[in-house]
Amino acid sequence: MTGSAALLTDRYELTMVDAALRDGTAHRESLFEAFARRLPDGRRYGVVAGTGRLLELIERFRFEDAELEWLAEHRVVRQETLDWLADYRFRGDVWGYREGEAYFPGSPLLTIQATFAEAVMLETVVLSTLNFDSSVASAAARMVSVALGRPIAEMGSRRTNERSAVAAARAAYIAGFDATSNLEAGRTWGIPTMGTAAHAFTLLHDTEEAAFRAQVAAFGPGTTLLIDTYDIATGVETAVRVAGTGLGAVRIDSGDLPSVAAAVRRQLDELGAVGTKITVTSDLDEFLIAALSGAPVDSYGVGTSVVTGSGSPAAGMVFKLVARKDDGGEWVSVAKSSTAKVSVGGRKNAARRLDSTRTAREEIVYVGDGPDGEAEFEADSTLRPLMVPLMRGGRADAAYTGHAGVAAARAHRAQVMQELPIEAFRLGRGEAVIPTTYR
Amino acid sequence: MTGSAALLTDRYELTMVDAALRDGTAHRESLFEAFARRLPDGRRYGVVAGTGRLLELIERFRFEDAELEWLAEHRVVRQETLDWLADYRFRGDVWGYREGEAYFPGSPLLTIQATFAEAVMLETVVLSTLNFDSSVASAAARMVSVALGRPIAEMGSRRTNERSAVAAARAAYIAGFDATSNLEAGRTWGIPTMGTAAHAFTLLHDTEEAAFRAQVAAFGPGTTLLIDTYDIATGVETAVRVAGTGLGAVRIDSGDLPSVAAAVRRQLDELGAVGTKITVTSDLDEFLIAALSGAPVDSYGVGTSVVTGSGSPAAGMVFKLVARKDDGGEWVSVAKSSTAKVSVGGRKNAARRLDSTRTAREEIVYVGDGPDGEAEFEADSTLRPLMVPLMRGGRADAAYTGHAGVAAARAHRAQVMQELPIEAFRLGRGEAVIPTTYR
Repeated sequence: MTGSAALLTDRYELTMVDAALRDGTAHRESLFEAFARRLPDGRRYGVVAGTGRLLELIERFRFEDAELEWLAEHRVVRQETLDWLADYRFRGDVWGYREGEAYFPGSPLLTIQATFAEAVMLETVVLSTLNFDSSVASAAARMVSVALGRPIAEMGSRRTNERSAVAAARAAYIAGFDATSNLEAGRTWGIPTMGTAAHAFTLLHDTEEAAFRAQVAAFGPGTTLLIDTYDIATGVETAVRVAGTGLGAVRIDSGDLPSVAAAVRRQLDELGAVGTKITVTSDLDEFLIAALSGAPVDSYGVGTSVVTGSGSPAAGMVFKLVARKDDGGEWVSVAKSSTAKVSVGGRKNAARRLDSTRTAREEIVYVGDGPDGEAEFEADSTLRPLMVPLMRGGRADAAYTGHAGVAAARAHRAQVMQELPIEAFRLGRGEAVIPTTYR
Repeated sequence: MTGSAALLTDRYELTMVDAALRDGTAHRESLFEAFARRLPDGRRYGVVAGTGRLLELIERFRFEDAELEWLAEHRVVRQETLDWLADYRFRGDVWGYREGEAYFPGSPLLTIQATFAEAVMLETVVLSTLNFDSSVASAAARMVSVALGRPIAEMGSRRTNERSAVAAARAAYIAGFDATSNLEAGRTWGIPTMGTAAHAFTLLHDTEEAAFRAQVAAFGPGTTLLIDTYDIATGVETAVRVAGTGLGAVRIDSGDLPSVAAAVRRQLDELGAVGTKITVTSDLDEFLIAALSGAPVDSYGVGTSVVTGSGSPAAGMVFKLVARKDDGGEWVSVAKSSTAKVSVGGRKNAARRLDSTRTAREEIVYVGDGPDGEAEFEADSTLRPLMVPLMRGGRADAAYTGHAGVAAARAHRAQVMQELPIEAFRLGRGEAVIPTTYR
């Protein structure tokens, strides 16, 4: 996916810039922060995703001629503002949680420092990427933890927008999925792709046997045959007759999976196909995967539930101005103060407190009043610092972008999961597994 | 959004083509059908959306060099298949429900006739577009019906993937929303855009008054001022003092909206700003909009709930091979016959039966065994035919694409809503408002 994200933006970002350029406040140095006020209902932790994608979108965020012409024609902003937009590129600094990090209510996931106009322009794209990708990653991480080491493939492209499908595959992979059905996710992000055949392939042929013969001729006996188009027991018998006992795997996409998987396993073993694996793919979510833990299943394919965040399709992150300079060049903490929806003003830093067993016990958010000064916690070995520089002067740190960024995020997530208290992995509803404390 | 959708595809579509090219079945003329087995839990009707976008994606569906090289490098398919993909363009026929049409369980929303290989390649993109867009449109239509004529703006870009945001704005507009905050949706689809300022704009300034002055200087007193950054009553007083009694509107984004709106209305009237409108925007969904029907609110802004399908983020549509020719050139109806997930094979046509008051009473699906023969219902005035030709020989009917397609879909939806029984608009859970009958 190439192209600028400049118009993937709410109109009010541009009108705010327009009015602020007029009165000069557009150039006030500002700090914006992305965070979630709460986790999705009943979740114990969230997983940050989207960061690497976002950094690339910010680097490419430019208004090109066609976009400027449309803005002019529709009188969205004045000519002076159009000139400013034509020159726009982000030159500020971004720091925040690494992609793949666990997060909790109030965790300062991303901080952007730049002039007001430069930073506010990015609000929509920051939230779109972090909200969607983190929603998928947070759901996917729960599925991975209940799969108990059995591989899971993401195959939900058809249940979400065609472009968000690519981002969903990436987020699920970062959260520990092993592969995706989405080819563009393979190409753009280096994620392993998988898939063999649908029911249509069997129905296309005059018989199930003819379909299986065609597939084995193309991909060899190590392929995965879909055995539930007609009668499952007949399908298994035909599959082993056609491919031999070296058949790679069979896929089951319907029925009461625990009992069907057990029957298929018995039949495969009786036929001598003791090495043939069983993969299941029928509307699974974290609860159904957990329910299959005792069944003879070797791998899972998950669609709808992972790409829609399993009940929480948006992670609920917000992007708030938390500090800005005044006319004297002094930083001023700011926050909305009307009812509900409370925000904490000021620059944040964050660390996770670990106990002697290296288990996370507390999310500590340090509230300062400006972006300067290193936090003292860096020398304390019970505290793991959570924020890293992601972008300086508008240039992303290459460690967090592209294929390398995805691989690093996936590895980081695996490490962070080791650190969470065991209660984090209970499926039932509950509070965030560690408290967030403001200092 | 330009670019080919060719790799926005599940790997198994290509491996099926690979195996079917090898045994010759790839060239069997085939009929695929997209339909929903059920409506989202408790919904009375669904609204078809995504069709126009889909037709454009199908016209542009090409494998370019970079994509073919990646497929070759990763050995997804054989060289012979790569050659076939390099020449691929869809040359078949598509017919189905018009965008904006109401649908029910089993409605044959889209039918594609082409060779197996040509048609199966489109499965993922067909389902991604129809599932996501219809999910948004189906939720949006409920919000429109409870808004009782008050305008609604879609402003959920930040709560969904940055590219799906554009599709969501389009689907909500088709379902009767009046505007969107998303600029790209304005440019690509001709949808009115709106938006003035966020809390950050007020916080950027030294005082709320300075912020309001800046906004009024830029956009005149007819603008919408956000009055809940600090104290709401003070905000209203300041807004009218700065803009005068000709102030266009105030926006409220927090608090108990029915009581806050009533207090703000009283205060505006006391200040003489009797023509100033009130718009509210705080995490609204169809239930909260209904609860505001008695409050002095003039318009709504809706974000998260509309772009995530208000609890049903995927419409659950599937794409099935329902008929294909045999070696003798005869059409054969096909359908999966294992447990659950039942499909009805064969070519479908559909009509909605209307009673003497032109109220819909029945969704009739005619099941044939091939694509030929006009249905006899076209002469019966109590039956409204539902399927139209959307694409012939790979060329889309321009009436359904681009800006014109969006406008036509929105108008069609408005007309169709008039036809639904009044029970369709009850918010509570229930069955589909009319039954689906197979003939």
